[in-house]
Amino acid sequence: MNYSIIRYILCRVLEFEGAFLILPCIVACIYGEKEGFAFLITMLLCLILGFIGKLFKPKSKVFYAKEGFVTVSLSWIVISVMGALPFYISGTIPGYIDALFETVSGFTTTGGSILTDVESLAHCTQFWRLFTHWIGGMGVLVLILAILPLSGSYNMHLMRAESPGPSVGKLVPKVRNTAMILYGIYLVITVVEILFLCITGLPLFDAVTITFSTVGTGGFGLLGDSVASYSTAAQSVIIIFMILCGINFNVYYMFLIKRPKEAFKSEEVRVYLLLIFVSAFFITWNIRGSFSSIFMDFHHSLLQVASIMTTTGFASVDYNVWPEFSKVLLFLLTLIGACAGSTGGGFKVSRLVVLFKSIKNEISLVVHPRSVKKVHMDGKMLPEGVTRSIQVYLMIYVSVFLASFLLISLNGFDFTTNITAVAANLNNVGPGLNMVGPAGGYSEFSVFSKLVLIFDMITGRLEFLPMLVLLTPGTWKK
Amino acid sequence: MNYSIIRYILCRVLEFEGAFLILPCIVACIYGEKEGFAFLITMLLCLILGFIGKLFKPKSKVFYAKEGFVTVSLSWIVISVMGALPFYISGTIPGYIDALFETVSGFTTTGGSILTDVESLAHCTQFWRLFTHWIGGMGVLVLILAILPLSGSYNMHLMRAESPGPSVGKLVPKVRNTAMILYGIYLVITVVEILFLCITGLPLFDAVTITFSTVGTGGFGLLGDSVASYSTAAQSVIIIFMILCGINFNVYYMFLIKRPKEAFKSEEVRVYLLLIFVSAFFITWNIRGSFSSIFMDFHHSLLQVASIMTTTGFASVDYNVWPEFSKVLLFLLTLIGACAGSTGGGFKVSRLVVLFKSIKNEISLVVHPRSVKKVHMDGKMLPEGVTRSIQVYLMIYVSVFLASFLLISLNGFDFTTNITAVAANLNNVGPGLNMVGPAGGYSEFSVFSKLVLIFDMITGRLEFLPMLVLLTPGTWKK
Repeated sequence: MNYSIIRYILCRVLEFEGAFLILPCIVACIYGEKEGFAFLITMLLCLILGFIGKLFKPKSKVFYAKEGFVTVSLSWIVISVMGALPFYISGTIPGYIDALFETVSGFTTTGGSILTDVESLAHCTQFWRLFTHWIGGMGVLVLILAILPLSGSYNMHLMRAESPGPSVGKLVPKVRNTAMILYGIYLVITVVEILFLCITGLPLFDAVTITFSTVGTGGFGLLGDSVASYSTAAQSVIIIFMILCGINFNVYYMFLIKRPKEAFKSEEVRVYLLLIFVSAFFITWNIRGSFSSIFMDFHHSLLQVASIMTTTGFASVDYNVWPEFSKVLLFLLTLIGACAGSTGGGFKVSRLVVLFKSIKNEISLVVHPRSVKKVHMDGKMLPEGVTRSIQVYLMIYVSVFLASFLLISLNGFDFTTNITAVAANLNNVGPGLNMVGPAGGYSEFSVFSKLVLIFDMITGRLEFLPMLVLLTPGTWKK
Repeated sequence: MNYSIIRYILCRVLEFEGAFLILPCIVACIYGEKEGFAFLITMLLCLILGFIGKLFKPKSKVFYAKEGFVTVSLSWIVISVMGALPFYISGTIPGYIDALFETVSGFTTTGGSILTDVESLAHCTQFWRLFTHWIGGMGVLVLILAILPLSGSYNMHLMRAESPGPSVGKLVPKVRNTAMILYGIYLVITVVEILFLCITGLPLFDAVTITFSTVGTGGFGLLGDSVASYSTAAQSVIIIFMILCGINFNVYYMFLIKRPKEAFKSEEVRVYLLLIFVSAFFITWNIRGSFSSIFMDFHHSLLQVASIMTTTGFASVDYNVWPEFSKVLLFLLTLIGACAGSTGGGFKVSRLVVLFKSIKNEISLVVHPRSVKKVHMDGKMLPEGVTRSIQVYLMIYVSVFLASFLLISLNGFDFTTNITAVAANLNNVGPGLNMVGPAGGYSEFSVFSKLVLIFDMITGRLEFLPMLVLLTPGTWKK
């Protein structure tokens, strides 16, 4: 294990976090809020630690997949541990584990909160909460790769470890350029949504922060009722941008380089959109008559479905009171998640598609024993390794899910609360059902349960292997 | 598809069922019960249909895996459809779908019931209910293979399609002899348990029928409170025989041919016993003080754990009122099930062991990219095909599970009831939690939900592929 290079990259991550923390400091100046000091202190701490650590140059440039996984896991832990400090120092969140939960929930774009009264928060605190979604949405290390001229074999290993989905789609031969394109698209979408939200009448501060939460597919809100009190127009903008950010960003790149045919060919995106609209129709049918018109039934169905499917977690109604069928459908969408290569989390639609194709192959192998079939995706044959790694992914997913469910149940809360809490955190969605429904939160969970959920959020965001490699004793043996 | 051979085997199955139905007729004679006529009519119907169908000899002996899967699925459907008639004709169960549910629950050794007052049933009806567990426990076609001199390639395909577990352990080169040995061991265990239960003071009728339910790991009982009102001694006998019947029967064969070392080497059995005792200890800790002594705490913990893990479904207490941790632990054991090659159902311990070893391999592949690792079991390397088929099995399992969960939720019952009902039926356990807890049942489910659960029970018992092949349009194309 090349410790010195890991330390070096972690210090760069700290520097970046320090730089990010300037923004809430500015917000605090604008609104004249004393909580700004907590951000200032944390900012200086990040910059100093980053500066000191960077003085010692790495001895060796050896960097394999193992180092990539460990670096990415530790980076996410480090930014969360530091990012929680402002909440704790300012006294906004009295317990450090609670502050850590909130921050991890932010960076991993989960959006489940331990706060019971978000409307009383200072502007700078709100800004930081929702800004963490934006930072985490496209990935911290992807950003660093986009900006810093890191050379050597780091790039690919870091990108592979952090990017969501079964295989990393390098858009262009150079990893750095890929990262720059992704962030470029991300920035453009962000600016466009801010504009649209302003047009619908949202104040600038609200438009900016809600945009962070939407495009990062996070789910933290400024109000106690999530996005319920916004106008239908604003909600519609949010629906559209949630759906857009749950799409594989490669698709946008294809449009950019004027190859729209390839973009439309993406099976993953087609299944993703199909699932959203079919689910929304089923729920509209199931809740028909709940709102003023069938159009509003559909509007609210689509908002919740898009919110859950993209793993954002906004809510315009308390769907915990909806009929059981709708609730179970939303729970199943929680398990699926968005597209690979998007800002959304979860199991990913592409994995689902490959799994179903594998099942079909297996059955057809019984019926026609002599046929040789391989899984195809977007017209291309998938390498055997990808199919296998997706099958292994499902195993790990189910194991971590059930183990967390058992541990959380020590809390003594009801079955539904526990199982949906784990699903919502492992898939970075945020709200579940019952106690952790859209009207509830995670404040009453024990410290132990919160630690389990923190682990679930990070391990889910990084898609298991990085955290499991970090925790495997074999990784640390000489 | 060789239709004529399938028809021929199905008629043999009907003949066997007709023969089995003689027993409840005799019981009806002994107790002078008029319900006996329903059994007599069904018996004659089975024998006549079987006889007529057998007159037309099969034209071709072609018999591939496809035919094996289809035959086994149809056999289980046919015996259930016919086996439900006595309940329906006698008026014991007024609705035919209810009668079918009860019969499928019997043959698949699930043990979930739609009856609300089992104590009022006639002896012959009770006998048939619990006898279906015994018939289904070791498999209907395995029995036919053991008795009838079927030649050709049928044997292996039928055995493979019906036997539980990832790979069929042929004990001896001839399939027919393997089937005879398995049924021989099964018979001996049955007789021994009847003796033991008689010694603890149970009346002969009760001892015989409860033994059917225990050794088939079924779970139907004679009393409204399952086995709660039996003496601690009788309960202990039941615990021991449940655990024994959840063990891979190959292990007993190893003892028979005096190779006990190989029996003790079985990783699956070791993990199975470990899971039972560790879970029982955890639950004892979790419910400590609930009963008169710590010994009784452990006794009841062990009974529920053994009952769930072996997929029997007996209960000595209403564990629905236990703390959440114990309930979730029991739910997770529901998902695992017993050993391959036992009378128990579920996902099977061997699959669990292989999945965990695959995960370990995958992580170690990241840490040591150049190492080549294969999954080993009982000291032997598993063929790549077995590992892959287990991974595919998990995919199908999860898909069927979640789809059933969604469909069942149309009933409008609560989340926990729905999800545990599906788990309990797909794994052939019987009781779940809340409404379908040990004190509840399936009587209030809609006809549609019952049909979904009937599908789950059969598809779970036959381990998915047979039923999926039956339902694949490609199977029926010329």
